[in-house]
Amino acid sequence: MAPRAAQWMSEESILQSSAELVLARPFDRAEREAVYRAIAERRDMRHFLPDPVAPDVLQRLLWAAHHAPSVGYMQPWRFIRITDRALRVALHALVEEERLATAQALGERKDAFMRLKVEGVLEAGEVLVVSLADGREHHVFGRRTLPEMDLASVACAIQNMWLAARAEGLGLGWVSIFDPRKVAALLAMPDGAKPVAIVCLGHVAAYYARPMLEIERWAERMPLSAVVGENAWPSG
Amino acid sequence: MAPRAAQWMSEESILQSSAELVLARPFDRAEREAVYRAIAERRDMRHFLPDPVAPDVLQRLLWAAHHAPSVGYMQPWRFIRITDRALRVALHALVEEERLATAQALGERKDAFMRLKVEGVLEAGEVLVVSLADGREHHVFGRRTLPEMDLASVACAIQNMWLAARAEGLGLGWVSIFDPRKVAALLAMPDGAKPVAIVCLGHVAAYYARPMLEIERWAERMPLSAVVGENAWPSG
Repeated sequence: MAPRAAQWMSEESILQSSAELVLARPFDRAEREAVYRAIAERRDMRHFLPDPVAPDVLQRLLWAAHHAPSVGYMQPWRFIRITDRALRVALHALVEEERLATAQALGERKDAFMRLKVEGVLEAGEVLVVSLADGREHHVFGRRTLPEMDLASVACAIQNMWLAARAEGLGLGWVSIFDPRKVAALLAMPDGAKPVAIVCLGHVAAYYARPMLEIERWAERMPLSAVVGENAWPSG
Repeated sequence: MAPRAAQWMSEESILQSSAELVLARPFDRAEREAVYRAIAERRDMRHFLPDPVAPDVLQRLLWAAHHAPSVGYMQPWRFIRITDRALRVALHALVEEERLATAQALGERKDAFMRLKVEGVLEAGEVLVVSLADGREHHVFGRRTLPEMDLASVACAIQNMWLAARAEGLGLGWVSIFDPRKVAALLAMPDGAKPVAIVCLGHVAAYYARPMLEIERWAERMPLSAVVGENAWPSG
């Protein structure tokens, strides 16, 4: 490995010091399997126990989120932990309002949608509102043609938190059924900020064996072959 | 655990069968640490060795991506594996074109940007173009007020792949420096599809010890306190 690393260093001038490179110990088989297990067993949870989340666990999950990649290293994520019960109830009311509006918009699937449990805002041990930061217009790196990459970074942060929560034995659900303008107003967010997730986090009695929307026959997992193509769009 | 699970089941009617619930074995300490290790050591790589990626590893990474959460279970991600060298060269040309346009747009940071290595499209063992699917307008669940949640789902898929790649000892870099219309045209994507990532994936001689843009003094990691608030916007 060392000679190749040396060759590689000489070919590229921008990383000046080998102190900035890590010839990291490979993940062993058990470590690798743990990562895949977290990916496989992560669920979008809507059923929670009311038990509180330990502060050190919450801190680790926020650390995990903050160590996500971000376009141009802009770190566009902001987290508002909701500990005020009245705020939580108000958030729930906004979700409920949009749940009904969504049901109407779904037409023939309205009744099936209304039977689903789509959030656990009142029950979960913790509720976090995750938002895009204000001032994003100053960040051009990686966003000139794709300004929405800031949202992609925030999603990576939430996915980190999701996987870490699974490893901690907690459940997490991403609720996007709300009007972002109303949530921004409720939380007095600065101009230019935009909430994109109400994250429900907490203890669960059990995890869904499969994605809940699969169990509820809302949709099925597509075969991998339908989403992967070679040099061309997947043929389905 | 069992009595609480039973109580929880009786409170909620939608999950009819306990066969759909898993009282999963907790992650042990080593498993938990492996997940955090993948999160901590994942890097947005731009330096690659040319060695090929083993087909079974690539398959596992695509599996990991496809097991991401998606809004309303819509699975909006599509992956085009680029094995045609001419296509790869053409993609690289589109990235280079946008790199120069971005540099111009950056104004006073132009020179600093031009010194950065922002992609490894020609060198990496594998290149995958990741796109939003066509037909997304049919999905309303979780998207009526936040239609961009489809991109959030695709980002979660890429983050899964990123962490799995780290566990496999591979590097991955998300390149968003391209005009999505030109990439869509190059790959003859259907109307309504939108590419959001050129993923470079492959063997690396070493990982950056810290995020490359930190090493290169482009930006610094913000303190966690600047991105977390309680019942209010973070005070910075």
